[in-house]
Amino acid sequence: MPEFLHLLPPDEARKILFAALPDPQPASETIDTLHALGRVSAEDVRAPHPLPAFSRSAVDGYAVRSADTFGASESLPAYLTLVGDVPMGAAPAFVLQAGQAALIHTGGMLPDGADAVVMLEYTQPVEAGCAPIREIEVVRAAAFGENVISLGEDVAEGQVVLPRGCLIRPAEIGGLMALGLNSLRVAKKPRVAILSSGDEVVPPDAEPRPGQVRDVNSYSLSALVLQAGGEAVRYGILPDQLEAMQSAARRALEECDLVVLTAGSSASARDLTATAIQSLGEPGVLVHGVNVRPGKPTILGVCNGKAVIGLPGNPVSALVIAGLFVVPVVKHLLGLPPQRLRPSVTAQLTINVPSQAGREDWIAVRLLPEGDGWLAEPIFAKSNLIFSLAAADGLVRIPPDATGLSAGEMVQVEGVSV
Amino acid sequence: MPEFLHLLPPDEARKILFAALPDPQPASETIDTLHALGRVSAEDVRAPHPLPAFSRSAVDGYAVRSADTFGASESLPAYLTLVGDVPMGAAPAFVLQAGQAALIHTGGMLPDGADAVVMLEYTQPVEAGCAPIREIEVVRAAAFGENVISLGEDVAEGQVVLPRGCLIRPAEIGGLMALGLNSLRVAKKPRVAILSSGDEVVPPDAEPRPGQVRDVNSYSLSALVLQAGGEAVRYGILPDQLEAMQSAARRALEECDLVVLTAGSSASARDLTATAIQSLGEPGVLVHGVNVRPGKPTILGVCNGKAVIGLPGNPVSALVIAGLFVVPVVKHLLGLPPQRLRPSVTAQLTINVPSQAGREDWIAVRLLPEGDGWLAEPIFAKSNLIFSLAAADGLVRIPPDATGLSAGEMVQVEGVSV
Repeated sequence: MPEFLHLLPPDEARKILFAALPDPQPASETIDTLHALGRVSAEDVRAPHPLPAFSRSAVDGYAVRSADTFGASESLPAYLTLVGDVPMGAAPAFVLQAGQAALIHTGGMLPDGADAVVMLEYTQPVEAGCAPIREIEVVRAAAFGENVISLGEDVAEGQVVLPRGCLIRPAEIGGLMALGLNSLRVAKKPRVAILSSGDEVVPPDAEPRPGQVRDVNSYSLSALVLQAGGEAVRYGILPDQLEAMQSAARRALEECDLVVLTAGSSASARDLTATAIQSLGEPGVLVHGVNVRPGKPTILGVCNGKAVIGLPGNPVSALVIAGLFVVPVVKHLLGLPPQRLRPSVTAQLTINVPSQAGREDWIAVRLLPEGDGWLAEPIFAKSNLIFSLAAADGLVRIPPDATGLSAGEMVQVEGVSV
Repeated sequence: MPEFLHLLPPDEARKILFAALPDPQPASETIDTLHALGRVSAEDVRAPHPLPAFSRSAVDGYAVRSADTFGASESLPAYLTLVGDVPMGAAPAFVLQAGQAALIHTGGMLPDGADAVVMLEYTQPVEAGCAPIREIEVVRAAAFGENVISLGEDVAEGQVVLPRGCLIRPAEIGGLMALGLNSLRVAKKPRVAILSSGDEVVPPDAEPRPGQVRDVNSYSLSALVLQAGGEAVRYGILPDQLEAMQSAARRALEECDLVVLTAGSSASARDLTATAIQSLGEPGVLVHGVNVRPGKPTILGVCNGKAVIGLPGNPVSALVIAGLFVVPVVKHLLGLPPQRLRPSVTAQLTINVPSQAGREDWIAVRLLPEGDGWLAEPIFAKSNLIFSLAAADGLVRIPPDATGLSAGEMVQVEGVSV
C-alpha cells in the first residue's frame, strides 16, 4: 500500500474516514429517564401535554381582571374586593368577578375570570379595624396577561421538546420529568473492540519478565471509550503475527461497531497492523500515516461499513490519537452531530515550543494559576510515558501552519477535566 | 434572621460557605482501577517498581557501544560486527562486546554492554554476496545513552505517581496499569440528600390535578450530583410545613454529607426553608439571598459541620445555582482542590443583553456556527422553564460590575457538554 504513505493532516484524514462511513443507524433501547445521564436520544420526544398545564402566576400577588386596574396609580388607586386565597396545588374554588381580587402565590393556578396578577408590592390592604381584610388598593395597572404564564406558553402539546441525537444532561432529565416522561428511547452504546498487540506486552496482573511490559492501551482506551459514551470490548493481547491479528480482528469486526488496534511499537509491527486491516474488508486502509505528533503511524480504515483504526503502540500517542479519531467515531455512532465544540481554558505559555511546519503537534501542559489567569507549562517527557499525560491538565494544539509557539503567547488548553 | 437579608455576590457567598466547612475527610474504599474513571484518589500512590523496568530502545536501530561510533560520518563510517537480534519481550541472550552491534526494535531491551542505539537510517548493511549480513556501517556517531530510555528514567521506585485528590482520567488508569496497580483507594462518593418541597408538587409518575406540577428538581439535581461525582439520595416531596421539613432535613443531615432543599416558589415557602435550616444545627444559615439572576432566594448554611443549601424552586434557578454552590461542595467533599478551571467556548453574542449593575447574571445561550467560530444566541424564556436550559448549549456569566453585554461582544460560554 505504498500509495497511502503520504502523510495527511489530521483534519483531512478524519474527513476521508467519515466520508467512507455509512450514516449511523444506532440501535436503540428504552431506559428510565432517571438513568439517562450522558446517553443520546434516539427519537424525537414530543410533549404529551402543554406546559404549564394550567395558567399560573409568575409572582406573589393578587389575581385580578386587568380591566379593573386600568389607570390605577399611587394617587388614584383601584379598589378591589378580596374574595379569597388561591391554594397551592389545587384549583381555586371560585370564579373571579369584576371588581374582585384573590391572593395568589408564585406557581398558583389563576382563577377563572382573572387575566393578570398584580405584584404584592403594588398593592396595599385596606385596614378595617380588627375585621379581616376585605379590600385591597392597587396602585399600578396590570396589563392583560401580566405576570401570568398561560397554559401551553412554554411547551405546546405535541411540540418536539427533545430532538433525536441530543446528549441527555441534567436539564433534559428535569424537562422530561416535568412532562411525566419517565422512560426514554436512547441510542445503544456502540461496542468498541480494543485489540492490543506486541510480543513484549503482558496483562497488567502478570509480573513482567525482563524485556516485557504491561498492557496499558487496552485499559486507557477502554476508559476513553466509556467516557465518550461507548462500551469497550477487550480482545486481549495478540502476538505480532499476521494470522492471529487477522482472525481476532475479523471476529471483533463482526461483534462490534468499531475496531481499534494498537500496534506494537516497532515499524514491522505497524506494517503488520496495516496488512491485517487491509484484509478485513472493503475499502480497507484509507489513511496510513498522519502528519501529527505524537501519532504519526496512525492507520484509518473502513471495512464492510465499520471504522477500523490502528493506533500507535506508544501509550501517549494512542490516547491522543484516539481522542482525535476514535472519540469522533463513537459520537457519530451514537447519532450525535459532528463534534465541533472544543471547550478550553485560555492560558499563557511559559516557554517556547518548537514545531515542524506542516505537522500538527499536541503538547501536554500543566496549568498553574497566575493572578486571575493561568500559565500553561509544557510537560516534556523523552519517552512519552503515560504518566506525562497523567500529570497534564490538558493539551495544546500547534496547528500545521505554525513553526512553534512562543513563550508568553496565549494558547487554548483543551481536554481539561473539572 | 434579618441580618442575613443583605444580598451577597456569588463568589463572596461561596467563600463564606467554605470558610465555615471543615476540611474534607473523605471516607475511602478500594476499587478496581478499571472501574475508577471519574473517581478521586484517596491516597498518594507510589510506584512499586521503576519504569521502565529495564533499559529500552526508543527507536528501531542497532544497539551499540557509543565509544565504537565516535567520529563516525558518511565519509568515515564505523564498521561493527552484527551479533544478533534483540527479541521483543525477552532479555537478549548475549552481551555486547566492543566492536559489536545488535538489531533492536522500539521497546526492545538493551543488551548488557550496549549504551546507545543508532537509528536504522544512519546505518547500512555491508553486503557480502549471498551470505547473511555480518557487518554494518554506522555513518553517524551515537552519544552515550542516545535513543535509550534508561531503567527508572520515567518513574523511580517509590515515586508518587498519583497524589491523593486527583481525578482519575483515562491516562491515570493507563499509568496505574503500567505499574500493575489493578486496584486503587478512592474517595467514597459523597451522599447528597435532595429534598423537594411545595404543596403543588407531585411525583413525576403521578397525573397532576389542576394546580399541581410534577417534581423536576429532585431529578435534574440528582443527575447534576451524579455528574459531579456524588451519590444523590432523594427524600421525596415535602409539604410546605415547618415540622415535616425539619424532621426530613434532620434525618437527611444525619444520613448524608450534604443536604440540598428546593423551596416552594412562593416567598413564604422560602422563609420556611430558612427557618428549617436555621433549626438544624450550628452555625445555621450563613447567607440568605445572593445577588445573582436566576437564583436570588438562595440560602447557604452549615449545620453540625455539613453544608445545607436551600435552592430556589424554579427549576432553571435550582440547576444554575446548584452549579455554583452544590457542585463545588461535592468536589470539596471528594477531596478535590477548589475548582477554578472553567473550560469554555468563545463566541460572539448576537444581541444586547441588559443586566443590573451589582448583580451577577447567568444567561442560557445556544451556540450557532459562524465561519470558523461561534455565535452565542441568548435563549429568553419568560418563566425560566427547564426546557430553555435543555435547548441551551451553555451559560454566559455577566459579572456584577457590568450593566449588560453588547451585541457583537466576545463572550465565554461555560458548561458546554461535548
